Amino acid sequence: MLTRKQVQEAQRKALQYMEKAGVVLSPKDRENISVADFGLSDLERQGGQILTFFNTDRISAKIIVLFPWQILPEHWHPAIGKDIGKEEIMRVRWGEIYLYVPGEPTPHPRGRTPEGEEGNFTVWHEIILKPGEQVIIPPQMVHWFQAGEHGAVIDDYSSTARDLQDGFTNPKITRETKIIES
Amino acid sequence: MLTRKQVQEAQRKALQYMEKAGVVLSPKDRENISVADFGLSDLERQGGQILTFFNTDRISAKIIVLFPWQILPEHWHPAIGKDIGKEEIMRVRWGEIYLYVPGEPTPHPRGRTPEGEEGNFTVWHEIILKPGEQVIIPPQMVHWFQAGEHGAVIDDYSSTARDLQDGFTNPKITRETKIIES
Repeated sequence: MLTRKQVQEAQRKALQYMEKAGVVLSPKDRENISVADFGLSDLERQGGQILTFFNTDRISAKIIVLFPWQILPEHWHPAIGKDIGKEEIMRVRWGEIYLYVPGEPTPHPRGRTPEGEEGNFTVWHEIILKPGEQVIIPPQMVHWFQAGEHGAVIDDYSSTARDLQDGFTNPKITRETKIIES
Repeated sequence: MLTRKQVQEAQRKALQYMEKAGVVLSPKDRENISVADFGLSDLERQGGQILTFFNTDRISAKIIVLFPWQILPEHWHPAIGKDIGKEEIMRVRWGEIYLYVPGEPTPHPRGRTPEGEEGNFTVWHEIILKPGEQVIIPPQMVHWFQAGEHGAVIDDYSSTARDLQDGFTNPKITRETKIIES
C-alpha cells in the first residue's frame, strides 16, 4: 500500500519525466497518471507510473514512466476467453531500459533485483532499449524490465490491456494498489 | 505520381516537423518516411507523410505528418475477411487538424477543399484536434482530415493497417504512389 502523499509525489515526478521526454498531455491526462506498487509497498524499487491514453476492446496505448532503477515486476499477459493474450510493443522515448525475456541468460546483466527477491525474476535474457528503439513482446511471454540510472519514459502500444488479469511470478503481488489516506 | 526529388523534399520536411514535435527516431526510422500522393500528383494539397513504427497482425502505430493545409483524402477502412475494419485513434502531437466525420455538417468549417473536388468530400461534421487531444475513428467510418496553417504531427494508433485496401471517395485515387526517377 501507498500513502496518498506517496502517490501524489510519484505523480508529480512522473509528470516531470513525461515533460522532459516531450510527451504532449491534455489537462485531463495530467490528472490521470496512475501509480502502481503491485501491492509490494516498495514503490521506489518495484512499481510503475502509468498514463493510459485509451484502452478499447481492440487496442490500447499508455505511457509508462520508471524512475531510476525502478522495476516493473516479472509478469505475463495470459489468454483470456477469445483473446490469446495481450501483444505489447514497447518503444523508449527517453532514458534507457533493460528488458528481460526468456532465452539464453545474459552474463553480467545490467538489471539489479532487490536482495532476497531472486526467485521472483526467472528470465534473464537482456534486451537494452534506448530512445527510438522498440521491441515486440508476444502474448503470454514472461518479461520484466528495469529503468537505467536516469529512469525511462516508454511508449507502450498494445492490444486490449486487462492489467488486473496479468500473471505475476511473485506470489505476493496484487495488481491493485491500495492507497491509505493518512 | 511524384518525382524522386519531390519525395525526398517531402521526406526532409516531414523529418523537420517530427523533430519539432519531439518524435524520437531511430536512424532506420529516418530512412523510412513514406510519402503518399494517393495517385493525385498534387502532394501539396492532398497527400501525407507517414512513418510506420510497426504493423503486426493485431496492432499498428504510425506518425502522420501533414504540411500546412495538406488534406488526407476522404476514406474508410473496410471489413476484410474476419477483420471488421481498422479502428484508429488519432492523437495530435503538434499543430492542429480538422477532422471530418459523418454527422451534422458544421457551418463555416475550417477545412478547405480544392476547387472542383467538392464531390470527393461528403462528410462535414468537424472535430478540431489540438496537441494532446485524441479521437477514436470506428471501423468503416468515412473520414478525412486537413492540417491547419502550421501543419500537424499526429500519433496514429490502430488495429492492423491494410492501407492498400482502404476505400476512397475520389475514384481517381490509387493508394500506391508512383515515383518517377527523373
